[in-house]
Amino acid sequence: MQTAVDELTTKARAAKKAAREVARLSGQVKDRALLNIADSLKSRQEEVLQANEKDYEAGRRDGLSEALLDRLLLTPDRLEGVAADVRNVVTLPDPVGEVLDMRTMPNGLQVGRRRVPLGVIGAIYESRPNVTVDISVLCLKSGNAILLRGGKESVHSNTILAGLIKEAISDAGMPSDAVQIIESTDRALVGRMLKAKEYIDLIIPRGGQELIRRVAEEASMPAITGGVGVCHTYVDSSAAVDMAVDIVFNAKVQRPSVCNAMDTMIVHSAIAPKYLPRIAERFVEADVEMRCDPRALSVIGPMNGVRAVPATEEDWSTEYLSLTAGVRVVDSFDEALDHIERYGSGHSDAIVTEDYAAAMRFLNEVDSSAVFVNASTRFNDGAEFGLGAEVAISTDKYHARGPMGLRELTSYKWTVIGGGHIRQ
Amino acid sequence: MQTAVDELTTKARAAKKAAREVARLSGQVKDRALLNIADSLKSRQEEVLQANEKDYEAGRRDGLSEALLDRLLLTPDRLEGVAADVRNVVTLPDPVGEVLDMRTMPNGLQVGRRRVPLGVIGAIYESRPNVTVDISVLCLKSGNAILLRGGKESVHSNTILAGLIKEAISDAGMPSDAVQIIESTDRALVGRMLKAKEYIDLIIPRGGQELIRRVAEEASMPAITGGVGVCHTYVDSSAAVDMAVDIVFNAKVQRPSVCNAMDTMIVHSAIAPKYLPRIAERFVEADVEMRCDPRALSVIGPMNGVRAVPATEEDWSTEYLSLTAGVRVVDSFDEALDHIERYGSGHSDAIVTEDYAAAMRFLNEVDSSAVFVNASTRFNDGAEFGLGAEVAISTDKYHARGPMGLRELTSYKWTVIGGGHIRQ
Repeated sequence: MQTAVDELTTKARAAKKAAREVARLSGQVKDRALLNIADSLKSRQEEVLQANEKDYEAGRRDGLSEALLDRLLLTPDRLEGVAADVRNVVTLPDPVGEVLDMRTMPNGLQVGRRRVPLGVIGAIYESRPNVTVDISVLCLKSGNAILLRGGKESVHSNTILAGLIKEAISDAGMPSDAVQIIESTDRALVGRMLKAKEYIDLIIPRGGQELIRRVAEEASMPAITGGVGVCHTYVDSSAAVDMAVDIVFNAKVQRPSVCNAMDTMIVHSAIAPKYLPRIAERFVEADVEMRCDPRALSVIGPMNGVRAVPATEEDWSTEYLSLTAGVRVVDSFDEALDHIERYGSGHSDAIVTEDYAAAMRFLNEVDSSAVFVNASTRFNDGAEFGLGAEVAISTDKYHARGPMGLRELTSYKWTVIGGGHIRQ
Repeated sequence: MQTAVDELTTKARAAKKAAREVARLSGQVKDRALLNIADSLKSRQEEVLQANEKDYEAGRRDGLSEALLDRLLLTPDRLEGVAADVRNVVTLPDPVGEVLDMRTMPNGLQVGRRRVPLGVIGAIYESRPNVTVDISVLCLKSGNAILLRGGKESVHSNTILAGLIKEAISDAGMPSDAVQIIESTDRALVGRMLKAKEYIDLIIPRGGQELIRRVAEEASMPAITGGVGVCHTYVDSSAAVDMAVDIVFNAKVQRPSVCNAMDTMIVHSAIAPKYLPRIAERFVEADVEMRCDPRALSVIGPMNGVRAVPATEEDWSTEYLSLTAGVRVVDSFDEALDHIERYGSGHSDAIVTEDYAAAMRFLNEVDSSAVFVNASTRFNDGAEFGLGAEVAISTDKYHARGPMGLRELTSYKWTVIGGGHIRQ
């Protein structure tokens, strides 16, 4: 452990020092650094793929599941996708230096707020090695240094990618110390990292619920809580049935493994007889299993190929991440809201309705990172909301909420320009 | 302890429930509630003063210092001042419901961000009973519920003030549960409150360094760190000497007991022979003691009435809160910046200069909540910056930095308006 702690302290300190420099770099230098990274991902592709093969083979020997092995795998195509994402970030405006507001006070003092980087961002992530690049690039563009701690299973890939990034940015005039990767795979190190408030200004966990819970509980510095979403779609009594079927199907089926996929559909009893058989039929084509409350079950009844089973209390607070959906029938708008309030995680919730008052109430009263009228919850995403890219989707209310892009990786400072002003 | 915990849980739960309602109230209702509070402070003045007298007498029996007794004391004048502050908050715009940005995406989806309250704000504060009113009013105006935990020494005053507020807001149609005050003076309760993440969305500590440190270390929810400032004024080689004397004198002397008062002045060696004797002479009139490095000491030399003594290493990181100032001579701008970086607390730092490049570098490179050119650090204040009022000055970078007013007590949510949109 001593060596691992030494590594953490040495690298965290170096990142902190580099952060001061990165904060002052021009957008031009930062963009040049990012383009160098994209170029290197191509020119050094062979090295990266070889390192990744080591991880892949080790993972296979260790009996990782096919799903995990797939998340671990890099291919020429996937690397090209990563490079394309980097080039996309280059096209985004530099958030640093933006003047948020500036005014001249009655006494002539010019008071403004100017956007500045947060400092050092710590990232703790699991198997996907592309996170090494994605998160580094967003942190660097927003003027931050980064301390990376990837999963043990992708250590070779992460190490070579971090090395490649360090060289690429250094060639552009950015200090290579701005990117630090912890190579020790000692598990106790995560605990130490979460206490290194002196060096790390924000922690971003990217991984499963267990990791996110641990970070939320242990981190002494601010941490992003997110990535876990029990998401609802409420089909109001006034909903257009065709639209409701399309939206719910999309929210559940288009990519069931992600946090903004729908988990539970709540259906008003007045529309249930028309709507439920239609969505049940549609779900057959994607083999979705429905976990139904007794009323939903009786409305759906036995149908050819339909998978409908009774729900348990636990179902209502489950994030399925699979082709499973809770189904609940309610008698009122308020009952639907109460369900969302009680079981939801404040991530993404939608209403399908043709009723103006219901739409407005839903927007006003549901307290989630994103609330939708007549649209799929799958749109809660940095790119879809125009942020260009995201490091995470936050379900916290403090600092930033929902998709976190470049702007959300910054703070601000007050700048005050006087002419000999003193306070009376 | 069991009863105290019960009280905490019951009141925190009630606050959480009320927060949902308060979040939806119109600005009109909230302003009416605030005006009722201001009126009650007048009409129920006698009751409040009687309760305060109990605290004052108990404090005197317990041997509280004159300074603490003065902080505890309410008078008709002081209550009128508190009521005036409440009326001032009424005049400020309602932050809730502000649309931060809204755009139509290429697919026609209308995506916006709307300002919403944080939820329940916990306040832990010491002797001043006016905090009960100040902080409640700012939290309610920004649509939040509040859980108050005042000091033992002001428990009678705080309890009657909280009761008065509950009645006043209830008369305006705001749920009285939106304001909760913990009456138990059990000290262990603070520790429990800091772990009540389930109910409290933000903790604001108002008190001495010990309280603030404890909150920073123990709180499981976001907490504002601030109120502690080791503040600098750097007198550049190019400074106008008269202006430098006025600004430094103001920053140190105008109100030495507050966090934005200057602690250390840093003086460029090229201007030290002209400037230091002038400020030393000026400090005589306010009886300021200077803790000097050897060069400053030798430049100042023995002068009539001047109090100049050698500084220790500890002085550079001391927040004096009194008529004491560190004095350091440096040979370069960079040396001054290094000193601020090393010993400062990122609160308020100023430069006095006539040099354009030095002014710009100071604004760019000093990483503090407020950076000043040719103005006194005393201006780092919500009212002076145009926020109208403040609950705290934050030295954190996450969420809000510097003075925190109504806007800083809010979050936002994404609102998405579609017409049957599904993701491809």
